[in-house]
Amino acid sequence: MNSILIIGAGRSSGALIQYLLEKGKANNWYVTVADTSLDAAKAAVMNHPNGKATWLDVNKPNDRKDTIAKADIVISLLPAHMHVLVAKDCLTLRKHLMTASYVSKEIYELDEYYKNAGIVFMGELGLDPGIDHMSAMKAIHEIHEKGGKLESFKSYCGGLVAPESDDNPWHYKFSWSPRNVILAGQGTALFKQNGQHKYIPYGRLFKLAENIEIPELGTYEAYANRDSLLYEKIYGLEETPTILRATLRHVGFCKAWHAFVKLGVTDDTYPYSTTPKMNYRQWIEGYLLDSENDKNKSTKERLAQFLKEEIDSDLMQKMEWLGLFTNTHINLENATSAQILQKLLANKLVLKPEDKDMVLMQHEFVYTMDGKTYKRTSTMKMIGENAKDTAMAKLVGLPLGMFVHHLMTKGFSERGVHIPVSAEVYLPILAELEEHGVRFVEKEVEL
Amino acid sequence: MNSILIIGAGRSSGALIQYLLEKGKANNWYVTVADTSLDAAKAAVMNHPNGKATWLDVNKPNDRKDTIAKADIVISLLPAHMHVLVAKDCLTLRKHLMTASYVSKEIYELDEYYKNAGIVFMGELGLDPGIDHMSAMKAIHEIHEKGGKLESFKSYCGGLVAPESDDNPWHYKFSWSPRNVILAGQGTALFKQNGQHKYIPYGRLFKLAENIEIPELGTYEAYANRDSLLYEKIYGLEETPTILRATLRHVGFCKAWHAFVKLGVTDDTYPYSTTPKMNYRQWIEGYLLDSENDKNKSTKERLAQFLKEEIDSDLMQKMEWLGLFTNTHINLENATSAQILQKLLANKLVLKPEDKDMVLMQHEFVYTMDGKTYKRTSTMKMIGENAKDTAMAKLVGLPLGMFVHHLMTKGFSERGVHIPVSAEVYLPILAELEEHGVRFVEKEVEL
Repeated sequence: MNSILIIGAGRSSGALIQYLLEKGKANNWYVTVADTSLDAAKAAVMNHPNGKATWLDVNKPNDRKDTIAKADIVISLLPAHMHVLVAKDCLTLRKHLMTASYVSKEIYELDEYYKNAGIVFMGELGLDPGIDHMSAMKAIHEIHEKGGKLESFKSYCGGLVAPESDDNPWHYKFSWSPRNVILAGQGTALFKQNGQHKYIPYGRLFKLAENIEIPELGTYEAYANRDSLLYEKIYGLEETPTILRATLRHVGFCKAWHAFVKLGVTDDTYPYSTTPKMNYRQWIEGYLLDSENDKNKSTKERLAQFLKEEIDSDLMQKMEWLGLFTNTHINLENATSAQILQKLLANKLVLKPEDKDMVLMQHEFVYTMDGKTYKRTSTMKMIGENAKDTAMAKLVGLPLGMFVHHLMTKGFSERGVHIPVSAEVYLPILAELEEHGVRFVEKEVEL
Repeated sequence: MNSILIIGAGRSSGALIQYLLEKGKANNWYVTVADTSLDAAKAAVMNHPNGKATWLDVNKPNDRKDTIAKADIVISLLPAHMHVLVAKDCLTLRKHLMTASYVSKEIYELDEYYKNAGIVFMGELGLDPGIDHMSAMKAIHEIHEKGGKLESFKSYCGGLVAPESDDNPWHYKFSWSPRNVILAGQGTALFKQNGQHKYIPYGRLFKLAENIEIPELGTYEAYANRDSLLYEKIYGLEETPTILRATLRHVGFCKAWHAFVKLGVTDDTYPYSTTPKMNYRQWIEGYLLDSENDKNKSTKERLAQFLKEEIDSDLMQKMEWLGLFTNTHINLENATSAQILQKLLANKLVLKPEDKDMVLMQHEFVYTMDGKTYKRTSTMKMIGENAKDTAMAKLVGLPLGMFVHHLMTKGFSERGVHIPVSAEVYLPILAELEEHGVRFVEKEVEL
C-alpha cells in the first residue's frame, strides 16, 4: 500500500493533508487530493513531491470510480450524506475507507460486505465524534478494569473562539460549518438521567442548557447533543444510570439562541417570501405578530417585549450587534430563515485571519469502588494558530491521518465497519496526538 | 365515457361511491372501486349492479396501469404522496384524474403535459381544500364584480364532533385521519396581517390560537393552517392586506395541544426507546426533566408544575382523562412519540357508532366600497348521520362525484392541472351541494 486518496480539500483538510504528506515523504507514499475545485486541491498539496492534486466531481460515478481505483486507502471529507456513494465504490474496488462523520445506518448495513471484502471502514475518526470516543473509552476501560462501577458519564465538547480573540458579545466565532451550527438540535435530544431516558424537544433544548465548570477557564454552558444513548452499548455503559453528551458554549449563548428558536428564525423547512430589497429588520418583523406586541413600537422594542427582556439587556445587545434591526438588504432569494440567519452570522461571527479558535473537551466520570464514590474529570484544551490553521482542523484531521498511518505501517486486526473505541485504535492514536500537543488533563476526587 | 375508477375505499369514500353509483344507474355508467383490501372494496360497492370491486396494490406498476387503462375517469383517494404515481399513468393512458388532496409541486409540473394530452387533473376537490375554494371564490368574485375592495379575507374550517355527541373534556372526536391531526402544524405557518407576511413557528402556533364567533354556535378557537398565501394569486388577492386560513377547534383544545407541543410528545422524527411493558405514565416521565421538576412528586404533579397549571385545572383534567398518568401498557415497538400519542387519542377520541360529527366552515370578508366598510360572513354547518355516514365523508366525497358527473355529462372547457376556483366549476357544484343540504348562510353588516 503506498497510495492515499483524500476526497475534499475544504475547511478541515489542512492539518490532515500536511500530516500525510510528511508521512508520505518518510514512507514513500503518494497522497492524492481530489476536489471539485482543482485550485483548492492544488493549494492544499502545495507542490509537495509526494502530493498530487486532481479535479473530481463525486457525483460523476465513472470519474469517482476511476479516481478511487488508483488508491489503496481513501479518506472522505465530503458532507456526511455523500459518504455512502464513496463507501459503495470502495466496497466494489476493495479499498479501505475513513471518515470523520457520524456513521449512518446505511453505512452500518455495509458491515458484512466490508468484512467479506476484507476491508475496513473506520468512521467517527475526527474530534467529536472521534477523539471523544478514544479518550472516553480509555478512561472507561481503566475504571472498569480496576473494578469501578460507573454511575455517571458526561462528555462535553465545543468548538469556540480563544479568549484572546474573543471580541464580540456572542463570545463565539465559527471554526466549523456554520450550517451545522444554525441547524444544531433540530428534532429531539435524548439522554439518560438517573436511570430514566429523557427527551428534550428543540423548543426546550437551549433553554435547558446547564452550567459546567472547566478547570482554569471557568463556567461554560452545555446543551444536550443529539442522541447520547447511541453509544450506551458500544461504550459498555448499559448499567450506567446517567449518560449525557453535550455541546459547550460561552455563558449567555444558549439563552440568546433560544430566543432565535422561540422566534422561529432557525426554520429550514420553508422559503421565507423575500422581496429583492428586504432588509434584516423586515425579516424579524415577519416573526413578530401584532397580537403579541405593541405595533406602534420599533422592531427592537417589539422583540424585547416578545422576549420579555429589558431593551438594553445582554441578550438584546447580542441581537443589536448582529444588525437585526438595520435596513441592510439581505440579498437572498427563496432562502429559508435558517439560510438568512446563516448568511448574517457567517459574516459577523467570522474568524479574522489572525484570530485563534479554541477547542474544549471534558469528560466527567462518577464511579463507585469499594464503597467509595469518585469523580474523575478529563479535560483537553487546544488553541489554534490562526484562522487557517485552526485547532478544529487539527483535531478533526490528525486522527484520520494517524489511523491511516497506523493501518499502512502496522495493520489493523478487524475488518468491517467500525468507530474508534477499541484499545488497538485509541492507544496508539492518543499517544501520537499527545506528541502533537493534544493532552487530556485528569483530575480525580473522592465525593 | 362510461367507466369510472375510484382508487381507495377508505374512510372518505362512502358518500362518493354511493353518489356515483346512483348517477351510474341513471346514466348507464360503471364504477370500479379498487383497494388493497378486496373486502373493503366489496363492502363499498354493496353488489350494486353498476359497481365492481377489484383488488389493487398501487405499488405494483403493471396492475396499476392495467386497472387505470380500463377506466375513462380516475378518482384517487390514496394518501397524498401517492397521487403522483397515478397521475403519471393517467398521463400515459390519457385519463382524467381527480383528487381531494393539496396539489403538490410535482403535480403542478405535469400541467403542460396534461394540457398537451387533452386531459384534466382536478385537485383540491374535497372539503378543505375544496368547498372552501368554491364558496370563497364565489363571494370574492361577487365582491370584486360590484367594485368592492377586499381588505381582509379569513377562512376557517374544522372537522369536529356534533354538540349532541360531545361527551369528553377535549370536545373533539376524530372524523378524519388521526395522523394528520397529530402532526398538524409541524413546520412554520404563514399568513398576511395588515400587509405584512407573518410566520408562526410550531412552538407558538397553538399558543397563538384566536377566538372566533360562529353564529348560533358561539365561540371557537382557530389556529393558522399551513401557508395561507398559497392562494393569494389564484384567488386574486394580491392587494388584500390580511389573508388567513385557519383550523377550528373547541375552546380549550389549542391550549392543551400547545402543552403537548411544549412537552415534545408530538415528535415524529425519532423512535421513543420503548420497553415492551412501558406504560403511558413512564412515557410522559421521559419528557419531564429532573431539573425542571420536583422529582419526588407524582407524574401528574410534575406535569402540572412543568405547565404552570393548577393540579385540577381544565387542562390537567383533559390530560388525566386521556390516561396519561396510568400504568396501562402502550404495546408499541420502535414507535415515535407522535405514534404513541396517535394510538392513545385514536382510542379515546373515537366516534361511537351512533355519534355524529360536525363540519364547520366560515369565511369572513371585510371590504370597502363607495367609502364604506362591510363585513360579510358566510357560514356552513353540517352534522353527520352517525360514525359511518359522517358529514366529513359527505363533504369530501360529494364535490369529487359532482365534478365527475359534470365532466361526463356537460364537459369542462379547460385542460391541464386545476383546482376548483373558476365559476365553471363552483357554480354547478355549489348549486348541487345545496340540494344535498350544504348551505352557506351569509350575513353582511356595515362596520
